[in-house]
Amino acid sequence: MEIQFLGTSAGQPSKSRNVSCTALKLLDELNEVWLFDVGEATQHQILKTNIRPRKVTRIFISHTHGDHIFGLPGFLSSRSFQGDGGPLTIYGPAGIEQFVQTSLRVSKTRVSYPIKYVVLKEDGLIFENDIFAVYTARLDHRVPSFGFRVVEKPRPGELLMDKVAEYNVPNGPLLGQLKAGKIITLSDGQKLDGRDFLGEERPGRIVTIIYDTRPTKNIGELADNADVLVHESTFDGGEEKMAHRYFHSTCLDAARVARDHNVGELYLTHISARYTGRAGRQLEHDARKIFKHTHLANDLDNFEITLRG
Amino acid sequence: MEIQFLGTSAGQPSKSRNVSCTALKLLDELNEVWLFDVGEATQHQILKTNIRPRKVTRIFISHTHGDHIFGLPGFLSSRSFQGDGGPLTIYGPAGIEQFVQTSLRVSKTRVSYPIKYVVLKEDGLIFENDIFAVYTARLDHRVPSFGFRVVEKPRPGELLMDKVAEYNVPNGPLLGQLKAGKIITLSDGQKLDGRDFLGEERPGRIVTIIYDTRPTKNIGELADNADVLVHESTFDGGEEKMAHRYFHSTCLDAARVARDHNVGELYLTHISARYTGRAGRQLEHDARKIFKHTHLANDLDNFEITLRG
Ligand SMILES: [Zn+2]
Ligand SMILES: [Zn+2]
Repeated sequence: MEIQFLGTSAGQPSKSRNVSCTALKLLDELNEVWLFDVGEATQHQILKTNIRPRKVTRIFISHTHGDHIFGLPGFLSSRSFQGDGGPLTIYGPAGIEQFVQTSLRVSKTRVSYPIKYVVLKEDGLIFENDIFAVYTARLDHRVPSFGFRVVEKPRPGELLMDKVAEYNVPNGPLLGQLKAGKIITLSDGQKLDGRDFLGEERPGRIVTIIYDTRPTKNIGELADNADVLVHESTFDGGEEKMAHRYFHSTCLDAARVARDHNVGELYLTHISARYTGRAGRQLEHDARKIFKHTHLANDLDNFEITLRG
Repeated sequence: MEIQFLGTSAGQPSKSRNVSCTALKLLDELNEVWLFDVGEATQHQILKTNIRPRKVTRIFISHTHGDHIFGLPGFLSSRSFQGDGGPLTIYGPAGIEQFVQTSLRVSKTRVSYPIKYVVLKEDGLIFENDIFAVYTARLDHRVPSFGFRVVEKPRPGELLMDKVAEYNVPNGPLLGQLKAGKIITLSDGQKLDGRDFLGEERPGRIVTIIYDTRPTKNIGELADNADVLVHESTFDGGEEKMAHRYFHSTCLDAARVARDHNVGELYLTHISARYTGRAGRQLEHDARKIFKHTHLANDLDNFEITLRG
């Protein structure tokens, strides 16, 4: 599980930061990549990474402001052109389907795969499979805006090979069943219960993504115990009034959420173009006074998401 | 008058070429910049140039395929955000207004300037002022596609200072009137006719822009005597069948137009991603066998447009 920042700018692209997109790479877990927001030129950023568009199966859109969605038509078209792409689901507030469908219709683009739209309205579970669950909750922005909490379910413990070695278990399907916690019967009739051969269940990881919002209670609920929190940081700590007026957060708001909700690592994104170079690093510096494990995200930064030791 | 290539790729962006956009810089003539097609990430390309979005007053769209229009919503939003932009007119086939308006409405973008839409339907004059006229004609693509011919009107001759020096004309307004070809009266009562003091009228320049199309008669009419012809060159000379099937042209098609219609300089654009590096230069090399003044356009190339000597 890795996270890669494809766009970390607020509102408009700058020379060093593109508009919003964050990729959650679940290659080991699902052989899939999920995108969170798709600002203009997301497909251009992807060209600079090892992400293959056909691996992108789910797209989560926080809100419909242009810097978070204008890359959708181009990305979807190129994913189609490159072929081999299976179905894709877009989760987002009302309006996304109309924007995408109008763009594809006017441009006479026939995509080669089905697109499913899930309209976000209420807080709660929006996706679940054997390995992951995704929750959303309404934030506080000028237009409906949603945060996301990706929860990896507890993973079965590893097969204890020392213990297995005491029995005559042949390599192959039987070993696999044991690893899956099932009961197997050996050739001599002996029964083994997989659960006796597994180490402790490992807790899953939690990744929370909070784009455009003022500070609001739901953020904490989405971020609680997250291993990784990605949080917008449009303004610096001195600009609280400005942040409030424009329905945004400061770097200190983000750090407080991380501190108060037992977060592992905090990544600041959605950085206003006014903070370039040293000024950007100052955001990180200031936030670290509140929450030490704060990192300023830069375009194309890629981080492995590990469980906290 | 300069021309700058902001995107020279066909269909999809590559690492070295963005999707279609060509800027015609009319700063000396009108203090304006005109764009021809606005592919995704055109605003990102503009960040790398000296073009100021507020100077862009007219946008000409050849056809509605995504690689020619998906940059419109982002460009228009950023032009608004940056302020000071006056009215803007978009000329293009039916569908552009719906695409732009849906994008702006869904993203809740209120642009700070009026946008006028001119739907292209018939061949002929689509814009005219004192200095320029723009003509369009239907090309032959899978969807309605239009070419453009920008004609600079003949410019008055320069003031012949040697001849003026024979008279006692004071610096200032009188000299200006003389330069404008008017009749002035000197302090001693002598009358001078400006037309007697001007050199020969200088012909205007002609720039023709031909995006996606098969070879077709209208191209020649738009390109006739052009000082600069920008022509799509999606395929190489060996791929004529492929070009026909996909409603495109080869580099040789472009060169033949230039040769047969007394063109000054030919710029090849809309280059398929299959032609990178040496293969791209091969397109130019092959086309030069037919028309010597052929240039492969690369992203951000900027050329002064001069009258032919
Ligand atoms: Zn926003
Ligand atoms: Zn086309």
